[in-house]
Amino acid sequence: MFAVVLAGGTGKRMGGPVPKQLLEVRGKPVLGHTLEAFEAAPEVDRILVVMAEGYGDQARRIANEAGVTKLADVIGGGASRSDSSLAALSWIGSHVAPGEDCKVLLHDAARMLVTGEIIAEVAGALDECDAVTVAVPASDTVIEVHGDSGMETIAAVPDRSRLRRVQTPQGFRFSVIRAAYAAAEAEPGFTATDDCSVVLRFLPQVPVRVVPGDERNLKVTEPTDLAVAEALLER
Amino acid sequence: MFAVVLAGGTGKRMGGPVPKQLLEVRGKPVLGHTLEAFEAAPEVDRILVVMAEGYGDQARRIANEAGVTKLADVIGGGASRSDSSLAALSWIGSHVAPGEDCKVLLHDAARMLVTGEIIAEVAGALDECDAVTVAVPASDTVIEVHGDSGMETIAAVPDRSRLRRVQTPQGFRFSVIRAAYAAAEAEPGFTATDDCSVVLRFLPQVPVRVVPGDERNLKVTEPTDLAVAEALLER
Repeated sequence: MFAVVLAGGTGKRMGGPVPKQLLEVRGKPVLGHTLEAFEAAPEVDRILVVMAEGYGDQARRIANEAGVTKLADVIGGGASRSDSSLAALSWIGSHVAPGEDCKVLLHDAARMLVTGEIIAEVAGALDECDAVTVAVPASDTVIEVHGDSGMETIAAVPDRSRLRRVQTPQGFRFSVIRAAYAAAEAEPGFTATDDCSVVLRFLPQVPVRVVPGDERNLKVTEPTDLAVAEALLER
Repeated sequence: MFAVVLAGGTGKRMGGPVPKQLLEVRGKPVLGHTLEAFEAAPEVDRILVVMAEGYGDQARRIANEAGVTKLADVIGGGASRSDSSLAALSWIGSHVAPGEDCKVLLHDAARMLVTGEIIAEVAGALDECDAVTVAVPASDTVIEVHGDSGMETIAAVPDRSRLRRVQTPQGFRFSVIRAAYAAAEAEPGFTATDDCSVVLRFLPQVPVRVVPGDERNLKVTEPTDLAVAEALLER
């Protein structure tokens, strides 16, 4: 099974000059923590890193320092998250035997606390279905708003018991996610914040299984998330 | 303006024998941190605490140790969150002058990092409308699921740009929130996870304004949240 670690973003929300996946938590870059988790997972055979332009060497060095032996390659990302996924799928397509339909995990590098249990859960579900996402219950009440910024009001309150917040990794049969992205490419301007959304949109006949994630599997996006990740690591 | 601090829960999710609002973060109970925020807010005149049965004295001691001068009373809560809100509204109804329509904030004690900015924002919005909630953008993709536990699949992916996660405090004209709860009482079995939902359901003609919250205004629910709150306090 391939694990794709998507580290193509440059972390504008962090406000600093360094991409967020290179910031350190307890003396190790975010990306290093993430790679260690996939290195340790017995289900994962090869790891492909998609890195922001100009940071490839740094990614290789981080993988090396984290003792990663499964690194297949480090490739450049695209302008958007979807472009980065697409770049990874192209790479895999040209590196697997014709007709081989492997499993692929797509994971946001910023979720540095992903656990072996989660990876095993997604890999296991892929024996029974073609697309899987990790998700956790919506712990807060979620609302839909309407109106302009500054004057927003509540439009609706969806039933919270049916809502989940999506995490990664998301897992796919390679043929399925590749077909979904091929269809997406034919629709210029289409973007998605996760990969399952691409399957849902372009291959609606494929059910997407939902398996339990973990509250600790947070995405390090804002500066305060670094402190949170550090606190969680220390426990 | 009244600030109601809802501390009626017994914190089953924490797994310990002590209600979560009594657990300490940096040497001070969660409830103490929360009370300090409302004590410091110039918009708040009086603070009413709704506490789990048997913990009233402890709540008074915590308020005392936190230097709270605005404490109006500590009253017992009900079986559910809605019951606790209702108890608070009854208390206020019997302590304000007839016909006086004050502002009321309802706040979960477990949101111990609520800021003065948030309180001011809600209080200010109540000059223009009758019901206000604090909310933050949904940082994760949110999905709706169907199917049984263990076999859930994605049913839909709502447009994330229109979704918000609700926090507290929520603010109301007293007459409005009281009327909403009076209507709710006539419907046995109705429960809500927040107070704006009661207005939306029973007074649908009243628009509920949404003002920006803060990612740091988290709800201390799980044991790991205590570590997170501590990390955020230290910054």
